[in-house]
Amino acid sequence: MKPTTGAREPHKLTEKGQATRARILEHAAELIYTKGVHATNNEQLRRAAGVSGSQLNHYFPTKESLVLAVIAWQAERVLTFHRGEQFACFDNLDAFRAWADFYVRYERAYQEGCSLGSLASEIIKTDLDVHDELANAFDQWRGIFREGIERMQQLGRISAEADPTQLANLLLAAFQGGMLLAQVARDIAPLKEALQAAIDHVQTFATSLDAGVLQAR
Amino acid sequence: MKPTTGAREPHKLTEKGQATRARILEHAAELIYTKGVHATNNEQLRRAAGVSGSQLNHYFPTKESLVLAVIAWQAERVLTFHRGEQFACFDNLDAFRAWADFYVRYERAYQEGCSLGSLASEIIKTDLDVHDELANAFDQWRGIFREGIERMQQLGRISAEADPTQLANLLLAAFQGGMLLAQVARDIAPLKEALQAAIDHVQTFATSLDAGVLQAR
Repeated sequence: MKPTTGAREPHKLTEKGQATRARILEHAAELIYTKGVHATNNEQLRRAAGVSGSQLNHYFPTKESLVLAVIAWQAERVLTFHRGEQFACFDNLDAFRAWADFYVRYERAYQEGCSLGSLASEIIKTDLDVHDELANAFDQWRGIFREGIERMQQLGRISAEADPTQLANLLLAAFQGGMLLAQVARDIAPLKEALQAAIDHVQTFATSLDAGVLQAR
Repeated sequence: MKPTTGAREPHKLTEKGQATRARILEHAAELIYTKGVHATNNEQLRRAAGVSGSQLNHYFPTKESLVLAVIAWQAERVLTFHRGEQFACFDNLDAFRAWADFYVRYERAYQEGCSLGSLASEIIKTDLDVHDELANAFDQWRGIFREGIERMQQLGRISAEADPTQLANLLLAAFQGGMLLAQVARDIAPLKEALQAAIDHVQTFATSLDAGVLQAR
C-alpha cells in the first residue's frame, strides 16, 4: 500500500491495533462484495465491525485507503486459494477442471461475481488511485495459470506449440467474463460453459493420454 | 422500458421532444462510458447536453430511468453493430477474426472497456432495477454468436459435435473478461489474446479447409 494514502501500515500497529484493523477490513470486504463500493458507507461499516468513527478514521482515513486495503485483502485470499495444495500449481488439466467446478458450485458466484473482479469493474473508471494495486493482483493471478501451463509443457503433458500466456489470458478472461454473464443472467450456466470451453481449449494441446477427447472428434 | 420508471416514452413525444431526449441520452451515454454511472451527475449532463434541469427532469425523472435508457441505447448500438453486413451473421471464422480485430484496434477498449459490459459491471450490485434490461441485451448478443455457429454447422463448416451455446458463452465471456483485464493492465494484450484463443477454439471444430491449423499441430 502506498504511504501517500495516509492509512496506518499494519506492521507498525500493536497486536490489538492489528486485530481491530483486520476486523474492520473483513467487514469492509464483505459489505463491498455484497453491496458494491458505492453503496458501502462509513456508518454501515462502523456498525458491522463494532468500531467508532474515530477508530475507523484512525485506520482508514480515506475511502481510497480502505478500498486499497480491501483490494489487497481480496487479492491475498484469491491468490492464496489458487496456490493451495488442491490445485497442484495447475500442472495438470484435472486441476483446472477442479478449479472450474469449485466456482461453478460456489453459490455467491452468480449473485455477487468474483470478489476481486467485481470490485475492479466497479471502480476502474473512478478517480481512486487503485490501478497499480489491481494490475499487480491480476498479473499474479495470470502468472499462476501461465506457470502451470509452462510446467505442463516441461512435463510433456501439453504441446510446446501452446502459448502459455495466451492460454492464461483465455482462462482468466473466461472466468471474469463468465462471472459477469452469470450475474447478469442470475444463472451459473454462462460461467460453467465458458470455463469448460476454455479448459477444453487447453486440452486440445494435450500430448498423450489427455488427447483422447480431441482424437474422438 | 418499464412504464413504472416514470420516464417519457419516446413514441409519445413530439418530433422536437424526441430530438431533445436523444441529445440528452447521447451525452449521458458518453459521460457514463467515460466516467462511470456514479461519477455522472445531473449538472454535468445538463451542461453537456445544453438542457435545463426541468427539461432533464421531464424526460428522465429519476437516475434509474436515465440508466435504463442508456442501457437500451448502448444495447441497441452494440447489437446493431454485430448484426452489420461486415460480419455476415458470423457464419464463418473470418467474421469472428474481423470482429476481434475491430475491438483490439478500438482505442477506447483498454481505456473504458465494453460500452455495455462496463456499465453492467458497475451497476449489477446496486438497487437500480435494471436487471431484466441487461439480461435481455446480453441474451440477444449471445444469440447472435450462437446462431452464427449454428449456421456454420448447417453449412458444414464446423462439426456437429460443437456446442453452439457453449462456444457463444466462451466468446462473449472472453470478450467481457478480456475487456476488464485490458482496462486493469492498461494494455490491449489480454483482450487480444483471450479473443484469439477463444476463436482458435471454435476453429478446432472446423471441418474442411479451416482445419489446417489444427492438423498442423
